[in-house]
Amino acid sequence: MPSNPSTKSELHQLQEQLRQFAIQRNWDQFHTPKNLVMALSGEVGELTEIFQWLTPEQSQHLSVEKKRQLEEEIADVMMYLVRLADKCDVDILEACQKKIIKNADKYPIEKCYGSAKKYNEL
Amino acid sequence: MPSNPSTKSELHQLQEQLRQFAIQRNWDQFHTPKNLVMALSGEVGELTEIFQWLTPEQSQHLSVEKKRQLEEEIADVMMYLVRLADKCDVDILEACQKKIIKNADKYPIEKCYGSAKKYNEL
Amino acid sequence: MPSNPSTKSELHQLQEQLRQFAIQRNWDQFHTPKNLVMALSGEVGELTEIFQWLTPEQSQHLSVEKKRQLEEEIADVMMYLVRLADKCDVDILEACQKKIIKNADKYPIEKCYGSAKKYNEL
Amino acid sequence: MPSNPSTKSELHQLQEQLRQFAIQRNWDQFHTPKNLVMALSGEVGELTEIFQWLTPEQSQHLSVEKKRQLEEEIADVMMYLVRLADKCDVDILEACQKKIIKNADKYPIEKCYGSAKKYNEL
Repeated sequence: MPSNPSTKSELHQLQEQLRQFAIQRNWDQFHTPKNLVMALSGEVGELTEIFQWLTPEQSQHLSVEKKRQLEEEIADVMMYLVRLADKCDVDILEACQKKIIKNADKYPIEKCYGSAKKYNEL
Repeated sequence: MPSNPSTKSELHQLQEQLRQFAIQRNWDQFHTPKNLVMALSGEVGELTEIFQWLTPEQSQHLSVEKKRQLEEEIADVMMYLVRLADKCDVDILEACQKKIIKNADKYPIEKCYGSAKKYNEL
Repeated sequence: MPSNPSTKSELHQLQEQLRQFAIQRNWDQFHTPKNLVMALSGEVGELTEIFQWLTPEQSQHLSVEKKRQLEEEIADVMMYLVRLADKCDVDILEACQKKIIKNADKYPIEKCYGSAKKYNEL
Repeated sequence: MPSNPSTKSELHQLQEQLRQFAIQRNWDQFHTPKNLVMALSGEVGELTEIFQWLTPEQSQHLSVEKKRQLEEEIADVMMYLVRLADKCDVDILEACQKKIIKNADKYPIEKCYGSAKKYNEL
C-alpha cells in the first residue's frame, strides 16, 4: 500500500525534530558520525542491561517497570540511529528494503526453515 | 503535519514484512526479546567497526565502500529494533515522542547550549 | 598467596607484547583511547554473535567450532582492554580489587542471596 | 622472563575471588555464558558512554572524575570477561598468545606499516 507522497513521513518528521533539538542546543559540533555511533552503542548497552539476567521466557513477560525502561531505551536507540543516518545521508527505510532482498537470497526458505544457522554453516 | 491515518505507515509495513520473513522460515522460536537484543547488539558492533580507526573528520567523508557497508549495518540495526519493539509491544515512534519531551526537560537550552555535559555534571 | 614481586606478571608481559606489536606497525597513531573503546566494542559485538540464537543451556555446551570462535573473540576483547588500560594508565587488576570491595558493599549477601536484582530494586 | 609456576597467577586469583563472590550469593544460576556475554556487553556500553562526546585528543586527557569512572568500567569489563572465560573453560592468556601469532601473520609489518586497513582492503 503506497504512502501518501504529500504527507511527510513520520520518520522524516522525527528526523526534523532531532535536527532542531540539536541546533537549538548548539550540539551539531558533537554529532559527528563517529560520536553518534558511540552514543548509539552506549544506549544499546543500556537496552542489554534490562535483559541480561532474564531467561528467554522472562524476557517475554516484562514487569511494568522493565517495560517502561525498555520503551525509553528503544527510543534512545532509534533517535541516535535516525541522527546517524541523517548525518551520513542514508535513507533508513530504503536501506532496509535493499537488505530484505539480500537476506531473502542469503537465507532461502528451503535451506533455512527452522534453523538459526547461516545456511552454509555446519 | 499529520500523517494520513488510512495509509499504513512505512514502519508498520516494515514490521509486517519482517513478521512474514520470520514466519516463512519458522524463525519465531529464536526471536525472543533476549535474543533479539543480542542480535541488535551484534549488528551495532559491526556498525562500530566501520568507524573505529577513523578520525571524526574522516567519519564525515566515507569512501564509497564504507558508505555501502554503513547502509547495510544501519538497515540491520533498524530491522532488529523493529522486530524487538514488535515482540515487546512497543510503539517506536510514540516512545520517541515521549522521550523527546523528557529530554527537553532534562537538557534545557539555557543550561546546555554548546555543552556535551549533562547539565548537572561538573 | 602473594605473587613473586621479581617476576613480571603475565598481564604486564602481554601489555608489553601489544606495545611492541603496535610500534612495529606504526599503529600508535590509531590507538587513542576513543578508538580503542570502539575497537573493544566491535569485538564484544562479535563475541555476542556467537551466542545470540543459543538458549542459555546451549550456551553451556558449545560445538567445537563455536568454542574456537569464542577463544578468538575473548582474546580480541582482552587485548583491546589491556591496550586501553595501558594508554589510560589504569592498572586493571588493582581496579578489579577496588571494584570487588565496592561490590561486596553494594550487594550484601544477606540482601542479595539468590537474587539478580540490585538489592534496592523492586 | 618466565613466571614462577608455583605462584598462583593474579588472573587465577581473580577468577577464584569471582567464583566465591557468586557462590556466596547463589548467583551461579544467572551466570550462564549467554547472560555473562550480555552483562559484559552492558558494561562495554557504560565504558563507551565515558568517551562518546570526546574528541580523540580529549580522550587522551581525562578529567579526574572521568578517570575514576574509567577505572570502574574497565574493572567491570575485566571481571565479566574472566567469569565468562571461566564458565566456558577458556584460558584467556593462552588464547591471547595464539591470537598474537595469528595477527602477526594476518598483519605483516611490511604490508601494514602505518595503515589501519586490513592489508587486503582497498
